[in-house]
Amino acid sequence: MRVALLGVGLIGGSLARALKRSGWTTSIVGYARREDELQKAIELGVIDRYSLEPECAVEGADVVVLCTPLKAMESLLTQIKPALTDQTIITDVGSAKGVVVEAARAALGELPSGFVPAHPIAGTEKSGVSASFAELYDDRKVIITPVSESADWAVNAVRAMWEATGAKVESMSVDKHDDVLAATSHLPHLLAFTLVDLLAHNSEHEKIFHYAAGGFRDFTRIASSDPVMWRDISVTNKAAILNNIEQYQTHLATLKALIEEQNEDEILNFYQRAKNARDAHIE
Amino acid sequence: MRVALLGVGLIGGSLARALKRSGWTTSIVGYARREDELQKAIELGVIDRYSLEPECAVEGADVVVLCTPLKAMESLLTQIKPALTDQTIITDVGSAKGVVVEAARAALGELPSGFVPAHPIAGTEKSGVSASFAELYDDRKVIITPVSESADWAVNAVRAMWEATGAKVESMSVDKHDDVLAATSHLPHLLAFTLVDLLAHNSEHEKIFHYAAGGFRDFTRIASSDPVMWRDISVTNKAAILNNIEQYQTHLATLKALIEEQNEDEILNFYQRAKNARDAHIE
Repeated sequence: MRVALLGVGLIGGSLARALKRSGWTTSIVGYARREDELQKAIELGVIDRYSLEPECAVEGADVVVLCTPLKAMESLLTQIKPALTDQTIITDVGSAKGVVVEAARAALGELPSGFVPAHPIAGTEKSGVSASFAELYDDRKVIITPVSESADWAVNAVRAMWEATGAKVESMSVDKHDDVLAATSHLPHLLAFTLVDLLAHNSEHEKIFHYAAGGFRDFTRIASSDPVMWRDISVTNKAAILNNIEQYQTHLATLKALIEEQNEDEILNFYQRAKNARDAHIE
Repeated sequence: MRVALLGVGLIGGSLARALKRSGWTTSIVGYARREDELQKAIELGVIDRYSLEPECAVEGADVVVLCTPLKAMESLLTQIKPALTDQTIITDVGSAKGVVVEAARAALGELPSGFVPAHPIAGTEKSGVSASFAELYDDRKVIITPVSESADWAVNAVRAMWEATGAKVESMSVDKHDDVLAATSHLPHLLAFTLVDLLAHNSEHEKIFHYAAGGFRDFTRIASSDPVMWRDISVTNKAAILNNIEQYQTHLATLKALIEEQNEDEILNFYQRAKNARDAHIE
């Protein structure tokens, strides 16, 4: 399979490495805006060739994978449209899926049968091709969100591609994906950014951070994630995120009231339920 | 030095192991409410003897370390009072310090010159003596919060004890400690409990937790902490915690408004400031 990788950062670079490791592809053409990153990707053996023109990178590809920021996708799809055929598989790795479908409709008009959005639930707080590694997707989940236009052959190909990386592939609707991710990923990231930014505003913030222990380090790790990516997610999955923030505000206000009242029984129940849920479902 | 350890869980057990490792003590007498935990501590070599009567455990001790839940301290101090001498060093490991000083005043009347509250900033989400290990305090911070009654010889002894565990000892006032810990430890724990409990209320919570990735695992690790300990901290450091929750609510409302307005520049600034602060101060 000939792969065109539009965007060669942590996610795209790791996908390329994993696909090469499995032998699923021997030809990966990269596109990115920054030539130095593309040259680095060549040096690291992540891609085989590159082009600074997306439509050239896509020419002759069996699979096009958009690994760019969400907000870049519509204009990229518009640029590559002339190079797509009826057989081209078009997929992406965006953290929100509704916005990708909208971008594709805006750029391509009728959605092609090769169009299958997907989202690998993996990543680190690092970014850039230098941070990429072939094992990123081992045993991680990838959610594919086929639309009604997606053909079976395309869905199967995208599923096979991700299985070749070592990931476990599941399928759900675009809306369901965006809700689930708002709760399990987007909300926690926003909460972590909020805590760190709050403490950074404190006039004694250096002292405060000095006393932060391992729990704080774990809790705030995701606040070191790429700010541009998270700005894009925040505005592209806005409705689901606002809904989740509101639910969180209500629940935090509940806990605050319990503490104000010194309602020890209910405070204990609250923490015990949380611990039970986490112990049962997460680790 | 003869040590009496009142409470032999993760924190107390790890202190005992670290003190034995360093040779600072060869005699540790344990007290706890549950005899099976004390027997386990004997089998693990964590303590040398035990008593189910706190005043007997304290008899003849050079240093008494209270490693029980915060709420148990006043009654324990009342019980051991007859066994204390002018030379007995009395310290603790509580996560809030104002409440420990209050408990000591209520139990002992005038504070003895051997009284030096302390707080090791270390722990894991596990609890119980089986989870204890000698390395827990290596290179971790311990904050001692001497009161005006604390004598230099007692402060020096508590400092020496913690340095023997491998920890770095710092000193600050009781109030300062409680503020700093509310921001860096108590608030994050409450935020994590709130997130997990919120998602556990969702009718599809099993599905939601199923899709949680590594970031969620890190972010919520502290929600697996001991609910009883965190209930106690929540009510004993109530004022500082409520103050911090209010600040957090205000800051989260600010971010929510930025997302509602799609104010991309300010959203990016918010996340970038957080990332910069964390990258500069935490890792």
